[in-house]
Amino acid sequence: MTVTDLIQKKRDRGTLSRQEIDYLVSGYVGGSIPDYQMSAFLMAVWFNGMDHDETAGLTTAMMNSGDVVDLSALPGIKVDKHSTGGVADTTTLVAAPVVAACGGTVAKMSGRGLGHTGGTLDKLESIPGLSVSWDMAGFTRIVRDCGLSVIGQTANLVPADKMLYALRDVTATVDNISLIASSIMSKKLASGSDAIVLDVKTGSGAFMKGFDQAMALASEMVSIGRHAGKNTMALVTDMSQPLGNAVGNALEVQEAIEILSGFHKGDLLTVSRALAARMLMVSGLAEEEDGAEQKVDEAISSGRALEKLKAMIEAQGGDPRVCDDVTLLPRAKKRLKIEAPADGYVHAMDTAEIGMAALLLGAGRRTKTDTIDPAVGIWMQKRLGDRVETGEILGEFHVNNEAALEESVERFLKAVHIQKGPATVPALIRGRV
Amino acid sequence: MTVTDLIQKKRDRGTLSRQEIDYLVSGYVGGSIPDYQMSAFLMAVWFNGMDHDETAGLTTAMMNSGDVVDLSALPGIKVDKHSTGGVADTTTLVAAPVVAACGGTVAKMSGRGLGHTGGTLDKLESIPGLSVSWDMAGFTRIVRDCGLSVIGQTANLVPADKMLYALRDVTATVDNISLIASSIMSKKLASGSDAIVLDVKTGSGAFMKGFDQAMALASEMVSIGRHAGKNTMALVTDMSQPLGNAVGNALEVQEAIEILSGFHKGDLLTVSRALAARMLMVSGLAEEEDGAEQKVDEAISSGRALEKLKAMIEAQGGDPRVCDDVTLLPRAKKRLKIEAPADGYVHAMDTAEIGMAALLLGAGRRTKTDTIDPAVGIWMQKRLGDRVETGEILGEFHVNNEAALEESVERFLKAVHIQKGPATVPALIRGRV
Repeated sequence: MTVTDLIQKKRDRGTLSRQEIDYLVSGYVGGSIPDYQMSAFLMAVWFNGMDHDETAGLTTAMMNSGDVVDLSALPGIKVDKHSTGGVADTTTLVAAPVVAACGGTVAKMSGRGLGHTGGTLDKLESIPGLSVSWDMAGFTRIVRDCGLSVIGQTANLVPADKMLYALRDVTATVDNISLIASSIMSKKLASGSDAIVLDVKTGSGAFMKGFDQAMALASEMVSIGRHAGKNTMALVTDMSQPLGNAVGNALEVQEAIEILSGFHKGDLLTVSRALAARMLMVSGLAEEEDGAEQKVDEAISSGRALEKLKAMIEAQGGDPRVCDDVTLLPRAKKRLKIEAPADGYVHAMDTAEIGMAALLLGAGRRTKTDTIDPAVGIWMQKRLGDRVETGEILGEFHVNNEAALEESVERFLKAVHIQKGPATVPALIRGRV
Repeated sequence: MTVTDLIQKKRDRGTLSRQEIDYLVSGYVGGSIPDYQMSAFLMAVWFNGMDHDETAGLTTAMMNSGDVVDLSALPGIKVDKHSTGGVADTTTLVAAPVVAACGGTVAKMSGRGLGHTGGTLDKLESIPGLSVSWDMAGFTRIVRDCGLSVIGQTANLVPADKMLYALRDVTATVDNISLIASSIMSKKLASGSDAIVLDVKTGSGAFMKGFDQAMALASEMVSIGRHAGKNTMALVTDMSQPLGNAVGNALEVQEAIEILSGFHKGDLLTVSRALAARMLMVSGLAEEEDGAEQKVDEAISSGRALEKLKAMIEAQGGDPRVCDDVTLLPRAKKRLKIEAPADGYVHAMDTAEIGMAALLLGAGRRTKTDTIDPAVGIWMQKRLGDRVETGEILGEFHVNNEAALEESVERFLKAVHIQKGPATVPALIRGRV
């Protein structure tokens, strides 16, 4: 069979074998299959889809295109979590220490923020001294000592994904469930954990805005994980407003510390709690949801979860005192209160636009090479459904550079929709797989 | 709009404007749009198709990618014909002289044979001394003097087609009516004639084997021609057996001469007559079919059509005496009679395989760089529906090189299906547009 035959097979609704998919992926990464054949294949996949077996096969082939991390030197079940990305989504910094405090092992490779979404690595790097660059020996040692570590991906993790994503981006083949699922899961599988919990976001701040699509993506990813022999669960959670109150790197670390200290409640805690409970379940440390959530609550109320975060920060070279005194985190020079322009209720938020408003202050990056300012961002004061009066504070801007401040405020105010009459608020946990 | 947006528009069943299609084609030919974006676009077209306006726009954009021949120096209506290709399809050598004899003007650029199909240029070059390479001045002079000329395409005719065809060939996007129609018609439009008659083949020797597909292609091409302001008609004709009796270059010239001499009747004459009649109609030289066919018959019976062929051969440097004595054409060293292996009726022919049998003797080329032997080929003795007895002659092989003779005979015998009981024979003229 030639590559053209394989393109034609998918074009004509055929089902590709594992061997055929391996041939396509390894040929593409190896350079023997050119971009123009792969893009025609991807467009045929866009139209005709892939079944669960094909999608699992694609994921495995992509995983095998680069290094596959071996965590077998670490005892017990290693658990990973992944969020499809959103605004004020700081669940890793809450859930991972909780799981470690309950006896779980979290050896996580994470990513950086791009566009309106934040990234866990950027948040961690706002802690003075902390490094996310560790070789496998260092990473393994930290996980063994602390029960958790969060570092950057190794350079050669799933090169097929980098190549395929770049091609999909310019050939209108991004928005396909099988291609999205294999892109995410190939990296999860290559990261070496034994069990995976996925958080698929839906709503105005999510990539997958519609609920049905988010559920389909969650199902596909769970199917891939189970095909690969990994205990996998997924939640579909609401991203029709920023999940936490803090949008910005040091601000989000502060909110995570406040939650782990037991000072602060809210949606970020609720979602983190549900994710941490599932991480315990897939790790075999809890049987069912109620018992798992009770363990999570005890880990927080006892202060053990915060101790785990502290230990990890110290092991990764950061200043652990930030956990006791959040003022040691980078602080912006200026704070600016943004007032509600009208009376009413918060009916909707354009969450991606709130992320962009924070990006304009310096909290995010438009392109991979932009630098970010860890101190700046927005602290939200109102949530969906809240009653507001004219002049009441909607949010507080933490500002260092005022160059784009005016545009940022303008976009923020446009993004918060205030209308007369009570608003309906979507459920936070929208689906379970 | 970016290229990615245009791919997405077609992917999502949008209709592209002329301007958008121009941008894609000129960007691709100019090198600013890479292969991988064009192949994703072509696959989206394969799935969602193009409407008549888009297909006409694509054809025009392709035509404008290179030289457009200007025949305005020649008086009157210049008429072109095109066949989608088949075996023993020598209609140009019959119809063009007939049209010239009736006062029409045929300034035709033709192609070479590839695979199982023959090419008019190869057939003409079997005439001693004849050249098909003329510059525009020479071409125009010959047409003015003789009323007809058939030469090779100029090098820079529709470079977009060469590029797109090569890309489609390796990305499983060949078999789409809009892409096939625009490929053929862009070259016809660039060749500068005012009126066009198309002969779309259907059956075992045709590229477009099914009748419905052939009709759809004929309709699309007529629509394109009319969009471009050219009087255009099409026939769909049967290619479930070789059209003439001769398969091979000098042999086909001999058959055309015999037909123009009035010695020889048969299917090749019938189709040539129908095509020539339509060429007169689109040229404004006949009003309706009956009158046109009468003119065609008179041109042949009077000998005026053969005189036109003779004049063209002489003007293009060939030996015109071949029209009076076909033994002056190249002759093979050896003739081999192939006998029927069984009693029965000829029920079917695998026409492409008969073309391949002739190719194996040296009459055709597998790749563009192969050389051909003008003298060799097969003279068919039986047609579909004919009764045959064991040992009766099915065909005569004209052989110079015996290297692949055995395989050739084997494939020929396999290609002619003899069964008990009378056979049904498809109509020769299967459709009209």
